[in-house]
Amino acid sequence: MHTRTVFVISDGTGITAETFGTALMAQFDITPRIVRIPFVDTVDKAHQAVRQINHSGEVEGKNPIVFSTLVNPDVVAVITQHCKGLLMDMFGTFVQPLEDELGLKSQHRVGRFSDISQSKEYLNRMEAINYTLAHDDGQTHADLSGADVVLIGVSRSGKTPTSLYLAMQFGLKVANYPLIPEDFDRKQLPPALEPIRKKLFGLTIDPQRLSDIRNERRPNSRYASLQNCRHEVAEAEAMMRRAGVQWLSSTHKSIEEISTTVLQQVLPQRLGVNLHG
Amino acid sequence: MHTRTVFVISDGTGITAETFGTALMAQFDITPRIVRIPFVDTVDKAHQAVRQINHSGEVEGKNPIVFSTLVNPDVVAVITQHCKGLLMDMFGTFVQPLEDELGLKSQHRVGRFSDISQSKEYLNRMEAINYTLAHDDGQTHADLSGADVVLIGVSRSGKTPTSLYLAMQFGLKVANYPLIPEDFDRKQLPPALEPIRKKLFGLTIDPQRLSDIRNERRPNSRYASLQNCRHEVAEAEAMMRRAGVQWLSSTHKSIEEISTTVLQQVLPQRLGVNLHG
Repeated sequence: MHTRTVFVISDGTGITAETFGTALMAQFDITPRIVRIPFVDTVDKAHQAVRQINHSGEVEGKNPIVFSTLVNPDVVAVITQHCKGLLMDMFGTFVQPLEDELGLKSQHRVGRFSDISQSKEYLNRMEAINYTLAHDDGQTHADLSGADVVLIGVSRSGKTPTSLYLAMQFGLKVANYPLIPEDFDRKQLPPALEPIRKKLFGLTIDPQRLSDIRNERRPNSRYASLQNCRHEVAEAEAMMRRAGVQWLSSTHKSIEEISTTVLQQVLPQRLGVNLHG
Repeated sequence: MHTRTVFVISDGTGITAETFGTALMAQFDITPRIVRIPFVDTVDKAHQAVRQINHSGEVEGKNPIVFSTLVNPDVVAVITQHCKGLLMDMFGTFVQPLEDELGLKSQHRVGRFSDISQSKEYLNRMEAINYTLAHDDGQTHADLSGADVVLIGVSRSGKTPTSLYLAMQFGLKVANYPLIPEDFDRKQLPPALEPIRKKLFGLTIDPQRLSDIRNERRPNSRYASLQNCRHEVAEAEAMMRRAGVQWLSSTHKSIEEISTTVLQQVLPQRLGVNLHG
């Protein structure tokens, strides 16, 4: 049973505002119901959103909480004047001090992603996703030198989701490469990785957790056995240590946290993006 | 040449704050340099961040802009007292009115993603990514009934990046299925899609843009020719119209916008997430 309804209202997708609002609500010991109302870019849609919000408040007998990221002044006016709820204007709150600091007027541009689909940044991002998919799980050695980052680690240590996240969020071309028993027998990194050693980053994982994950895929296999997982993880860590490859354990980390650490270690200059190219 | 340095400082990854700060800065006609300082979760690291921020301000002779999402009061105190710059506290600003409205104290929990890696939500998200990769580009008919959404459209209309984004951001299992000349000859949807018609959503694309995209892959091929692209797009749109499948054009839309529209049409109840399961 939720204890409060939280609306996120935006003239764009509202995805960023929803993530932010969700993180804020996680600071409180309640179970919110979060409702995102995207693409509110006309006065008509603003009135419609207001009706939805006010109706919810009446039915539940509790003030809805409303996070808004709206830039059109006419739309903002409708919400401000008619919305019954705790309104938190995530744009307006910060735009005014920024205008003062910069000595500039804001442009009231709607939506971060408007018309972005043909921008250089966006096309790079699409290219990065394609590259990353084609270079998942050591599928090809071709153009490994074109990678921004190459993740290595035993099978099911979290390489694929991390690679895709880095491509999707940061437009990075990420290859990933499994470390397999043949590599452990040779006691050396796969030869294809030698020329790009500086781009390597390793993921390791707690053997018990690895065994749990592998057992979901191939129950009771040698591959999934705790004994084998222990062996593979120990061999992989020893190999990365010998080769001087930095790594982290993915066991208790989200892909956002893993990705941020990879950036810090391999591409610290990418811990910030340049707007407008 | 950038005209202002913008710092994003967080005790977590700071990725949400960076996205939000970037969107705010896009309201101004300047070229900011954005620097993210993640994992600032101790007083020592706070002092280190302050030194970096103040040094940047001195070198550039301009007040840095600082977006912060910090919850540890000791860390916040260091930043508030020592940071020379326009400080915008994205957490504190909204936590106080929320405390008043809810009649609760916030818990000062650090980081949205802490210890999330074994939560049900996170495991669902990983499973969704695996499902989506396995069902990319019509690779398998197996377990199509397990999909939350199935995207259809001609080759290179944007299905794969949209599917991965829906899986990554919303934990949805998304299959995608290309519409190919054989389908057009039969004038019918692929038979495997008939039982799941309610989960279908179509992507279409401007033929000229499709031809440009395909030409990057296979220059001067029949596949990429404008004439063929026109034919395929017309056939695909006619087929979706006959089958009563809703669709949108991906031509001028970002994957965030496409994904939000897919949710609105196919899974409107997913336009909001329930925290804590």
